[in-house]
Amino acid sequence: MVNPMERIVIIGAGNIGTHLAHALVQHVSIVGIMSQHHESAHKLAGLLNCPTVERIEDIPSCDLILVCVPDKAIGNLLQNIPAEFNVAYTSGAVSISDLPIRENLGVLYPLQTFSREREVNLFEVPFLIEASNTFFSQYLFDLARKLSHKVIFAGSEDRKKVHVSAVFVNNFVNHLALLAKNFMDENQLDWELLKPLLKETSEKLLILDPCEAQTGPARRKDTITIEAHLKLLEGLPKEVYTLISKSIEQTYQAKKND
Amino acid sequence: MVNPMERIVIIGAGNIGTHLAHALVQHVSIVGIMSQHHESAHKLAGLLNCPTVERIEDIPSCDLILVCVPDKAIGNLLQNIPAEFNVAYTSGAVSISDLPIRENLGVLYPLQTFSREREVNLFEVPFLIEASNTFFSQYLFDLARKLSHKVIFAGSEDRKKVHVSAVFVNNFVNHLALLAKNFMDENQLDWELLKPLLKETSEKLLILDPCEAQTGPARRKDTITIEAHLKLLEGLPKEVYTLISKSIEQTYQAKKND
Repeated sequence: MVNPMERIVIIGAGNIGTHLAHALVQHVSIVGIMSQHHESAHKLAGLLNCPTVERIEDIPSCDLILVCVPDKAIGNLLQNIPAEFNVAYTSGAVSISDLPIRENLGVLYPLQTFSREREVNLFEVPFLIEASNTFFSQYLFDLARKLSHKVIFAGSEDRKKVHVSAVFVNNFVNHLALLAKNFMDENQLDWELLKPLLKETSEKLLILDPCEAQTGPARRKDTITIEAHLKLLEGLPKEVYTLISKSIEQTYQAKKND
Repeated sequence: MVNPMERIVIIGAGNIGTHLAHALVQHVSIVGIMSQHHESAHKLAGLLNCPTVERIEDIPSCDLILVCVPDKAIGNLLQNIPAEFNVAYTSGAVSISDLPIRENLGVLYPLQTFSREREVNLFEVPFLIEASNTFFSQYLFDLARKLSHKVIFAGSEDRKKVHVSAVFVNNFVNHLALLAKNFMDENQLDWELLKPLLKETSEKLLILDPCEAQTGPARRKDTITIEAHLKLLEGLPKEVYTLISKSIEQTYQAKKND
């Protein structure tokens, strides 16, 4: 089914749409880019030298429409795309069963955080694939394999669980960095000082088990330091400090009792 | 004061002591390594080809004793070290004012996480310096500058604040990874899948402001996804998810109201 003349339309020219379009254009023919933000669509189409599509009725014949819009917009959009089109979307959280039924409906979920201004090596990014039938899921698998060496099949429930974990590893890690930066800023201390630590923390996590890598006052039940730290904090950062310290203590308590 | 014949004794052969000893031996003469774990001291001394010291009474004449022991052991140890020795310790959390007074007492705090099995490029690591007098603090500053290009003076209160922030960026980030890994393991999903995301998350934080880098359901107030995620979690991970999501929402609410 995958061949050099493969024709794909991309709907959505945000972070994911943009990154996938740049990667796909090297392997397939992108025959249309559509976005409710016409300017974004035109900009991306210009960069990739491919046509824009203004309205759903104007979508040309193609092998796949790849829907890269926000989760809450997927359902409505799908209702308006004629049944003869094969459609895949890129969301981690939306189940196939929650969407209007169609013959060929699937998911191609890149497990990564995308920012417009940062290039990402897609080849390293895991893609999670699911579809309404095995033929279409094999098609999406083969397509994703052109972009990445790490493609797996995963049902909606598993994908949702991976997505929850991704929220911890990405969104929440990012927020902890924000809380630390805010605290440093408020105290006229230089956030740059913490960057080597942040770098080493994550590099260690790529090699060591997080359970082994853990250090710090909560790990060693150093209540004196924890109390001293809490005196410096207030509001939600203090609540976060308290709860995560409790969670760390419980982790190693449970381990000890194993 | 710093000269090629500089003589240093190191007490503590744990992670910090080991890393600092390996770095210092290239610039100074390490005239003794002491640890209550005699085996660790002997192993490190053997590697660096320098003598061990069994008892405090046997510490040879030196320019500095560098105390690299756990926080709660520093006070007692200092009480037993004769007044004529110059002493510095490496803790982020212990204030000079909480320790027994001596003429030359200081801090040389490397802001990094150390594991025995990982080499760390100390040259990139910020060192925070403080001492009981300006002469000794300049001495410690010059010593640290041999190891790192990023050395600053910081009083005990500032150092403690940096240490709190370090707990967020290191200990707590590590724990979020642990929670994610546990959740993946419990659901027979492969933790390796999340590593490219973890890597990109921290690499983005080295370049982008964490406030700008934030994405995800809490950032966009996507209550449907948040509710769906919470249904998958229980216990402390669920509490952590709830609290950090609330903290993210409040961050951007506050920003909107600016």
